[in-house]
Amino acid sequence: MTQHTVTGFDDELRTLSQILVAMGGKAEESLADSVHALARQDHSLAEHVIARDDAIDDAEREIEEKAVLTLAKRQPVAGDLREVMAAIRISSDLERIGDLAKNIAKRVLVLNQTMLPQSVMLGLENMSEKALLQLKDVLDSYTRREVDVALDVWARDQEIDAMYNSVFRELLTYMIEDPRLITGCTHLLFVAKNIERIGDHSTNIAETVHYLVTGEPLSDDRPKHDTLTDPVVADEAV
Amino acid sequence: MTQHTVTGFDDELRTLSQILVAMGGKAEESLADSVHALARQDHSLAEHVIARDDAIDDAEREIEEKAVLTLAKRQPVAGDLREVMAAIRISSDLERIGDLAKNIAKRVLVLNQTMLPQSVMLGLENMSEKALLQLKDVLDSYTRREVDVALDVWARDQEIDAMYNSVFRELLTYMIEDPRLITGCTHLLFVAKNIERIGDHSTNIAETVHYLVTGEPLSDDRPKHDTLTDPVVADEAV
Repeated sequence: MTQHTVTGFDDELRTLSQILVAMGGKAEESLADSVHALARQDHSLAEHVIARDDAIDDAEREIEEKAVLTLAKRQPVAGDLREVMAAIRISSDLERIGDLAKNIAKRVLVLNQTMLPQSVMLGLENMSEKALLQLKDVLDSYTRREVDVALDVWARDQEIDAMYNSVFRELLTYMIEDPRLITGCTHLLFVAKNIERIGDHSTNIAETVHYLVTGEPLSDDRPKHDTLTDPVVADEAV
Repeated sequence: MTQHTVTGFDDELRTLSQILVAMGGKAEESLADSVHALARQDHSLAEHVIARDDAIDDAEREIEEKAVLTLAKRQPVAGDLREVMAAIRISSDLERIGDLAKNIAKRVLVLNQTMLPQSVMLGLENMSEKALLQLKDVLDSYTRREVDVALDVWARDQEIDAMYNSVFRELLTYMIEDPRLITGCTHLLFVAKNIERIGDHSTNIAETVHYLVTGEPLSDDRPKHDTLTDPVVADEAV
């Protein structure tokens, strides 16, 4: 990082990083809590996740405002400009992760838990543990500006996609066997999709860390598990 | 817009706008084509949508690169800075719209069309016509920098959410009645979700246009159709 004669700029960049790290912590909490709430039928925990989302949205707004002010005031270039752009992008991915976790929590509040297949619930908990680890690791790679850790997260995304495919197929079999399970399983379908997309957002963050540190974008060809004969169609993070 | 002594800056802003408008046109095409391909079982059209997505992704990268260069070189403030930030945000929403349309097209390629309920297909076509109009109108509001049109798009989003809820409920009834329809209807569920999310991205663009023109963010409380007793849980654009 270039030397700044104005230490105020260093303070501003550090503040951006700090807000981002705190925001990341909240996103991790919400991901973990939403799936725990689902597994335990914990409505109170689900309400906490929903309530926490306001703070996550506020953090994104704060980062965007501070970033735009920094751009206007300091007019950064090169690595410093990448720092500010990276903060904007990562906060956007974290805000979406928060929304996806909130959506899982909202479904906890309307689900009839007695009609949910336990094997699928375990599959979802496994998926979310993987996704949580991905998120922790990639936020760690941002804090330490470590490209190798980011690249590892990027490569591991296909594991979550493969788990998503398995859970999806399993849910289809339950729905076909017993129509009374369809409504509940449809919710679980969306829960699985949300976790898969949270994984995709962690991969986005990994790409941003790579660009931040090296100045180069990652290759287009993100590893995805996707076959035309598979009734499950993986998509990019949207 | 402030007067620029350096007309090169005007050229750069104009170029950003032009790439964005062309990108928007492609996103509109892909949305329309993906649902037409679904309705007509048109695999060739679906392949075109999938192929077009590369151009949409390229446009987002081009806008981001040019925007970052402009920020570094011209160091804009106030309205000009908002122009550059708006271009980055809108290109991000358009890129996601392209991905959602591509995902619909991919599902066309794996669906067994003889097992799809026609009333739902019509419902999906109606939804997509509404979503297409939203997208056209909001991109028009960007081109003409017209806040009223943007606000109208923002308010109309709940119409698409309501249609999504109806299509979703209808699909559930088909799935419960006939297990042979479950796999196909699950695809249609995701198609409906994708169209609902495209509507949300148009709403995001409306918020960006409002911020661009007025310098103020829109209120947090986006109109959403969302009740706890409703098994369908609407979410924000993620």
